[in-house]
Amino acid sequence: MRIVKAWAATSATESLSATTIERRDVGENDVLIEIAYAGVCHSDIHTARSEWGQAPYPLVVGHEIAGTVAEVGSAVTTHTVGDRVGVGCMVNSCRECDACKAGKEQYCTKQVGTYAGTDRDGSITQGGYSTHVVVDADFVLQIPQGLDLDVAAPLLCAGVTTWSPLRRFGVEKGSKVAVIGLGGLGHMGVQIAVALGAEVTVLSQSLKKQEDGLAFGAVDYRATSDDTTFTDLRGKFDLILNTVSANLPIHKYLSLLAVEGTLVNVGAPVEPFTVPAFSLIGGGKSLAGSLIGGIPETQEMLDFCAEKGIGAQIEVIPAEKVNEAWDRVVASDVRYRFVIDAATI
Amino acid sequence: MRIVKAWAATSATESLSATTIERRDVGENDVLIEIAYAGVCHSDIHTARSEWGQAPYPLVVGHEIAGTVAEVGSAVTTHTVGDRVGVGCMVNSCRECDACKAGKEQYCTKQVGTYAGTDRDGSITQGGYSTHVVVDADFVLQIPQGLDLDVAAPLLCAGVTTWSPLRRFGVEKGSKVAVIGLGGLGHMGVQIAVALGAEVTVLSQSLKKQEDGLAFGAVDYRATSDDTTFTDLRGKFDLILNTVSANLPIHKYLSLLAVEGTLVNVGAPVEPFTVPAFSLIGGGKSLAGSLIGGIPETQEMLDFCAEKGIGAQIEVIPAEKVNEAWDRVVASDVRYRFVIDAATI
Repeated sequence: MRIVKAWAATSATESLSATTIERRDVGENDVLIEIAYAGVCHSDIHTARSEWGQAPYPLVVGHEIAGTVAEVGSAVTTHTVGDRVGVGCMVNSCRECDACKAGKEQYCTKQVGTYAGTDRDGSITQGGYSTHVVVDADFVLQIPQGLDLDVAAPLLCAGVTTWSPLRRFGVEKGSKVAVIGLGGLGHMGVQIAVALGAEVTVLSQSLKKQEDGLAFGAVDYRATSDDTTFTDLRGKFDLILNTVSANLPIHKYLSLLAVEGTLVNVGAPVEPFTVPAFSLIGGGKSLAGSLIGGIPETQEMLDFCAEKGIGAQIEVIPAEKVNEAWDRVVASDVRYRFVIDAATI
Repeated sequence: MRIVKAWAATSATESLSATTIERRDVGENDVLIEIAYAGVCHSDIHTARSEWGQAPYPLVVGHEIAGTVAEVGSAVTTHTVGDRVGVGCMVNSCRECDACKAGKEQYCTKQVGTYAGTDRDGSITQGGYSTHVVVDADFVLQIPQGLDLDVAAPLLCAGVTTWSPLRRFGVEKGSKVAVIGLGGLGHMGVQIAVALGAEVTVLSQSLKKQEDGLAFGAVDYRATSDDTTFTDLRGKFDLILNTVSANLPIHKYLSLLAVEGTLVNVGAPVEPFTVPAFSLIGGGKSLAGSLIGGIPETQEMLDFCAEKGIGAQIEVIPAEKVNEAWDRVVASDVRYRFVIDAATI
């Protein structure tokens, strides 16, 4: 067991504060990671504030972790001291169910979240706003050369969350893709879809971030506050990736799909969608959901991003600015991801 | 132009009555069909009663047509006098759009319905409750030997409406499929899914038709009025085919899907579905829609049904019983399709 520094939530209402936490001894299948950067995801805030159910306190969040291997267990063959590695939203799963066997560990019913989860040894997991973390080697990803650790960190959640559905629904050269929302997820979705060869349109409430969207490679950028967007683009898209958690009039977005197109949600609004049957039947359309991504596809995504030179667009902050950063995330005032410099923790 | 006998609706409220209608001359690309049987689909009733929008009267419905070629136009090479043929829900489309080029004419925005549609010559189409019909050869299907015309008629709508999504979503040997509702569509869905090699469960309000469901090849038959159905079958199905038009608590049915499973709707309830985002995101699931099927896949379905010895389970009626039959369809009192003997029209 070792004591390491971290920033923790002590209740649903208090600001994060500096503290120390225990990390388990490095087991034979474990990797000790010296964290370099931890991305700030909106999920961190929802969880720490018990907005998604009662959180265990004190709680260290953070599931976009990039760092360097400091120690490995005796049975670990996949990682070596000094390797540049990452950890995303999961640190364990059952390894036996159909989902695990298919490399879709995110859908394992015994999946263990990187924070606020109950690990297989019964301990509550603590996340990446910390200097070190001990993780089962099977849930540690290699960050390829050519990807800096700071821009790589957000790929572990925002990257794979958009990569997984883009791949699953067959986005390729010439695909017509729309991305709803240009935030942390959306700016990764646009870059990845463009790199896959798609013709990408951003659908955003306003044209405020239009310049950025086009710089990320989108060929079109439309305001959804303007109703002509929905008439102009009717029937256009093979895939629509919805990255926002607001309650959208989903039938209007379904009308933008081409025949047999799919609208896939990675954001999770609180209110249910209202879906007229004919908005699906009329063009043989699908409304789908997707949750982060499995371990094998996370590695594929990292390799792809390294090859294509894709990273998150980030603002690196010292740990002492994290509460301010959270306020800005809640206010959607970030382009496009805060990343905590773990050296300042 | 020729005058032929038919049974027509003269208003939204009156019973169908015997009459005569005009059929166009056989154009160079047309086929004149002597109708042998016409299936009774619930859509006929909705349309004739103006429940789906104001219908043009007098109106002859019927889009499950089986008969024999009586005459062909000079340019027709695909059909010959004496051929056993069928016509489904469409009699024309634009031939030029992506949907048409892909053989998915049902999604062509200029698709012409078999009745109550405006054909490309401007005339209002009249359907199959009649002795003869003239149809563009490209929308006439061959009914293979081994399929009797009476049991083949309902395949033109009920058959292809279930075949299309079962095929599109990859049902094959070992697939776990549930069919919601054992009516005209459902009894075809069960038979076709079984013949494709799937392990099929029927989900019905009650166990009233259990014996029939098992006879059609289902391995399990569950009442959805019993909540244990939803706990027992949680996460089980690769595909759920929803054939009912009632408003279902769709999230309960989504919970029965396996990871990345699809619930596809071919029935169209009036009220929109209420879909919590997490019921899709949690297992990477999809809620889809499907509308009848294209012409090429209709022919594939007919060939498959002939090969596998699948037909609709029918009750043949004389035309004078059609109003009584409609009342029974509305009351769900039919096992499983009424078919009008056109010789009695």
